[in-house]
Amino acid sequence: MGEDRRAIGVFDSGIGGLTAMRELAALLPHEDIVYFGDTGRVPYGTRSRETIVKYARQDARFLCSFHLKLLLIACGTASYAALDTLQEELPIPVYGVVEGASRRAVELTRTGRVAVLATPATISGHVFGKCLKNLSPDVTVMEKACPLFVPIVENGRFQPEDPIVRILTEEYLAPVREAGVDTIILGCTHYPLLSEAISRCVPGAALISSGAEAAKMVAASLRNSALAAPQTHDGKRRYFVSDSVEQFRQNAGMYLCHPLDGDVEWVDIEKYE
Amino acid sequence: MGEDRRAIGVFDSGIGGLTAMRELAALLPHEDIVYFGDTGRVPYGTRSRETIVKYARQDARFLCSFHLKLLLIACGTASYAALDTLQEELPIPVYGVVEGASRRAVELTRTGRVAVLATPATISGHVFGKCLKNLSPDVTVMEKACPLFVPIVENGRFQPEDPIVRILTEEYLAPVREAGVDTIILGCTHYPLLSEAISRCVPGAALISSGAEAAKMVAASLRNSALAAPQTHDGKRRYFVSDSVEQFRQNAGMYLCHPLDGDVEWVDIEKYE
Repeated sequence: MGEDRRAIGVFDSGIGGLTAMRELAALLPHEDIVYFGDTGRVPYGTRSRETIVKYARQDARFLCSFHLKLLLIACGTASYAALDTLQEELPIPVYGVVEGASRRAVELTRTGRVAVLATPATISGHVFGKCLKNLSPDVTVMEKACPLFVPIVENGRFQPEDPIVRILTEEYLAPVREAGVDTIILGCTHYPLLSEAISRCVPGAALISSGAEAAKMVAASLRNSALAAPQTHDGKRRYFVSDSVEQFRQNAGMYLCHPLDGDVEWVDIEKYE
Repeated sequence: MGEDRRAIGVFDSGIGGLTAMRELAALLPHEDIVYFGDTGRVPYGTRSRETIVKYARQDARFLCSFHLKLLLIACGTASYAALDTLQEELPIPVYGVVEGASRRAVELTRTGRVAVLATPATISGHVFGKCLKNLSPDVTVMEKACPLFVPIVENGRFQPEDPIVRILTEEYLAPVREAGVDTIILGCTHYPLLSEAISRCVPGAALISSGAEAAKMVAASLRNSALAAPQTHDGKRRYFVSDSVEQFRQNAGMYLCHPLDGDVEWVDIEKYE
């Protein structure tokens, strides 16, 4: 049994990473978790790799000021661009959202046809495709960039009846449906809010939340390890953002599926480098 | 006649301000102009006022390293949030995009009903509404936030036939049409790319580009003033961005309506404060 009271750090480009935070907090009630959402610079997924790496480094530096035991990049785009860099630079284990979701997809698929939905940056890096192929060379992977999913979700538009949601999901998912895909990785942590709309376009396909799968991997790695917190500890959650605290407070519940369970503070993220 | 060889500075949250830059360069062929587009942190219009002021200050500080004679905030959102602050803090004249467009609207309207389309941040500040009312107390102003216009334009989607463009313009402009508006201020410098789509929704209404009107104001203030550059000088244009130089090069022509006419360089904007 562990006795490690250091916190777990989690970051995302904005609020989407809360879909991973939710799972992590549920699986690890004894762990302290510090979340940072870079709401002042969201979205990451349409920026260049250099800029994403720069931002991810600052996010990690800030979180490391909390004396972490482990870092989870709960952002598909930052996982693509900066996982290697952060694993190299930080003295603690660093997880991204690519591996867990890819493993789960390989387990679940029956047709061997898997689709990955993600931001343009993530898709351009083919990280999910490479990981899936490494795990199972026979799998056929269709990678589809969905550039407007983050902006619409950030603007609170994800209801399946919304015509903008209907048209965009149909546009992005028609080729996925036609390709006979039975398993879809939501390679951006904002996308689980669009699950219902996506399911309507590709009925019967299994949807995999990359944030939730990453949280399961982290939980499995901690359980029964020396890194785990004492079972008697009541895990605390803290939240930090780089834009309006009020706006984050208003929207967080939608992603967490429960009321916000910790303080929210603003941080001047540009100071960390 | 002027002999002032200092440059004019222009900034925007991203690439939209080029709609002002184009007009400015055409009206002032003898002036050196330095443009900064904060493409690493675009969009501004969905962020809090505090964050927008912080970013606008950094943008201005960077441009002021060029020994400017005048600064144009070619961004509706930054004009709303930071014009007063920058006018107070800088020793040179600072223009925003609100006044020129408002004057033009008051001149043009016959029905006395004017609409303002802008980002949520700008609309929340009512800056265009206040300016219009000051100029002409009888004018009826309808202010309409269009939160998804910048993301779709930044993603290259502004063709009137695009279903996303059709649905969003119809959604945002139906109340404008029903209100009998005859004059529409495009209060965000990205919006002129949507002119055709907007015109289809409100046939007959005059569209006013806030960036182009601001450029005309700046040009009028310089002409015949001591601040003007010598008539023999061939004005140079330089461009700076905070994300990919390559992406800016690819897209700039669309906004300028002519090929890019100057060098593009990357700048680490967070260093300026």
